[in-house]
Amino acid sequence: MTYSHDELLAMDCADPYASLRDEFSLPDDVIYLDGNSLGPPVKEALDFMSQTTDFWRNDLIECWTKHDWFNLPTQIGGKLAGLVGAEADEVVCSDSVSVNLYKCLAAALRMRPDRAVVLSDFGNFPTDLYVMEGIAGEFRMVDSDAILSAIDESVAVVSMSHVDFRTSRINDMAAITRKAHDNGALVIWDLCHSVGAIPVDLNGVNADLAVGCTYKYLNGGPGAPAFMYVAKRHQETIRQPIQGWWGHASPFEMMTSYQPDSGMRRMLSGTPGILSMATLSASLDVLVTADMTGLRDKAMRMGEVFTALVDERCQAYGMELGSPGNPEERGNHVIFSHPEGYAVVQALKKQNVIADFRSPHWMRFGFAPAYLSFADIGNAVDRLEHVLRTGAWDSEKFKTLAAVT
Amino acid sequence: MTYSHDELLAMDCADPYASLRDEFSLPDDVIYLDGNSLGPPVKEALDFMSQTTDFWRNDLIECWTKHDWFNLPTQIGGKLAGLVGAEADEVVCSDSVSVNLYKCLAAALRMRPDRAVVLSDFGNFPTDLYVMEGIAGEFRMVDSDAILSAIDESVAVVSMSHVDFRTSRINDMAAITRKAHDNGALVIWDLCHSVGAIPVDLNGVNADLAVGCTYKYLNGGPGAPAFMYVAKRHQETIRQPIQGWWGHASPFEMMTSYQPDSGMRRMLSGTPGILSMATLSASLDVLVTADMTGLRDKAMRMGEVFTALVDERCQAYGMELGSPGNPEERGNHVIFSHPEGYAVVQALKKQNVIADFRSPHWMRFGFAPAYLSFADIGNAVDRLEHVLRTGAWDSEKFKTLAAVT
Repeated sequence: MTYSHDELLAMDCADPYASLRDEFSLPDDVIYLDGNSLGPPVKEALDFMSQTTDFWRNDLIECWTKHDWFNLPTQIGGKLAGLVGAEADEVVCSDSVSVNLYKCLAAALRMRPDRAVVLSDFGNFPTDLYVMEGIAGEFRMVDSDAILSAIDESVAVVSMSHVDFRTSRINDMAAITRKAHDNGALVIWDLCHSVGAIPVDLNGVNADLAVGCTYKYLNGGPGAPAFMYVAKRHQETIRQPIQGWWGHASPFEMMTSYQPDSGMRRMLSGTPGILSMATLSASLDVLVTADMTGLRDKAMRMGEVFTALVDERCQAYGMELGSPGNPEERGNHVIFSHPEGYAVVQALKKQNVIADFRSPHWMRFGFAPAYLSFADIGNAVDRLEHVLRTGAWDSEKFKTLAAVT
Repeated sequence: MTYSHDELLAMDCADPYASLRDEFSLPDDVIYLDGNSLGPPVKEALDFMSQTTDFWRNDLIECWTKHDWFNLPTQIGGKLAGLVGAEADEVVCSDSVSVNLYKCLAAALRMRPDRAVVLSDFGNFPTDLYVMEGIAGEFRMVDSDAILSAIDESVAVVSMSHVDFRTSRINDMAAITRKAHDNGALVIWDLCHSVGAIPVDLNGVNADLAVGCTYKYLNGGPGAPAFMYVAKRHQETIRQPIQGWWGHASPFEMMTSYQPDSGMRRMLSGTPGILSMATLSASLDVLVTADMTGLRDKAMRMGEVFTALVDERCQAYGMELGSPGNPEERGNHVIFSHPEGYAVVQALKKQNVIADFRSPHWMRFGFAPAYLSFADIGNAVDRLEHVLRTGAWDSEKFKTLAAVT
């Protein structure tokens, strides 16, 4: 066998990050391979949320100043900036990824008034494509392989995901950004599936704008506020379209005309959801103090173990890797196709292994290194093999479910 | 004396809504006259938030279906629809007021492609004015008195607050909507300071679009998600600009092109903050089951008591009513000007009376009938008189504070 259970246990014993699991609140009997979709709660974050409701109850309107709620968007932005290779004053937290991408895209188009083309790839996350389709003068989609050759001087903005949500393929941020700049275009990176998972170096690649999600690898909570990055060189001139009071230079002077704040606050619009934001803020403490390079190495090793074991024990049952085979070329999740993928994922749930499904036939498995062990990976494959070998799924039963999900 | 303490206590004894205060978690010693800015927590909502984090911890990604998080935006919309005179399928909850107003305004402008003018009044809440200024082809502001006469056939959209956040004046929703329609214009009503406070009858006045806030009189929590209303007759054709996956007809099919949902979901964009949303959902239970007409009567009576007592006891110290004198013509708050307004509000806080300040010299007092008693109103005026009479404020000390707030 490629990796015996003893070997996996030995890897866990040698794992310097094993104790991080204690920071999370997860059911004991579950192997959670879907942290790339919704991260589990950080214990400290639940405590902080409860403390925040105590603030609300006791200090009422005073909270905005007493607990500095007013500055949470820039504070949280500054806290997570290091995870994306940005300075603290280049990131702000608010709204959803869709709204933030809309703001960035509209702002970028305003910076390239003579061009109408927005370029993306078919593999990009649908909400990104929909947002672009909605406001691009001309919207072009190509295969992700063809992005570099599709960038020419007609392109105003290129927008892509750093890590493909389906295949997990890492798009070459440096090369794409360089080619875009050589052609006078701007780039908006979507970091949803890379932030907190793989190294991101926005300033290192001379990036323009970026957006990202905090409820996946950052464990910020369901629908936690998203973030935006604007490179310092663009901050003075950028104008986003949803001009709200939270982006005003003097919000409490209640002036009748808009004057954007001089820094990242100008990207804000309305009042953010503080309960969600406070929870996110405390959740981040785990990862921003962790050794992200070491965690990424662990995640790549987990992916290798998983794919090797599946290859050895489940390939005969029709499992086929849909992600790049080299862990360096993919994020912290992998996908496998299987003709009964949806039903198998449902059957796995009954075995307490939580993965997810992406139509038409993709099973997606995420390896969050902060709370998963190598033994978890081995046990997950045991149960997957069991399900496949025994045919312990019932495709008929799940067909109806699949139709509504 | 206009109202003696005994009389006020008798009014409390006769108050059929007095027991509603038990539903709220408020410090015992505080008289909270700022629920028009940030409502206090509903006890049940805090329990439900804690239950929601248990769901997250135990059911992880399954929560979206198991606890129907996916439908929270329309569920909550349906729950509060009655408070604004709408059908359950005409309201959806998500994002902030600023973002929602932007969506509605862009959608309305698309419905009037031959017109460029957006009309509002100087007294409207600043974030509304900024949003309009940002996307109107031509933005006109007039005094609120002059709105009716400013509506002509050049106007694409009129957007106003139902209740003025500063003066508390109720704008005539029926007359303004009618005049706008007579001239081929659409109207977007901002209900931030009226929802949960005064009767709102959107369908009764044949309204087009509306937005509103849930963290004031609806007590949904700091920065709780806002709502949007679209009259059924517009729902089939309306297109909002931030096309995200949450507004897609089949979000989980992950199609590459956008197809709006057939109902109110099309107004959504990205994933909403569930912790904030769940808290809001439970908060609403208090008001949606209450007798809103009776509560409004109580609030008007409180406003009368407050203004009469201030008139009698504090006018000599420079307090001057800035709201309409007739309670029928104003919302559930009143403002008074005082040259040292900011310092007086700070001094009142030390006396455990929480009001707020709006520059340049307005003191704002809100009367939320669900958790305030008539005795509270009497005690608040006692302390206000004490502060004014003894000069127990220190304007020098507060000047610095005022500059940063």
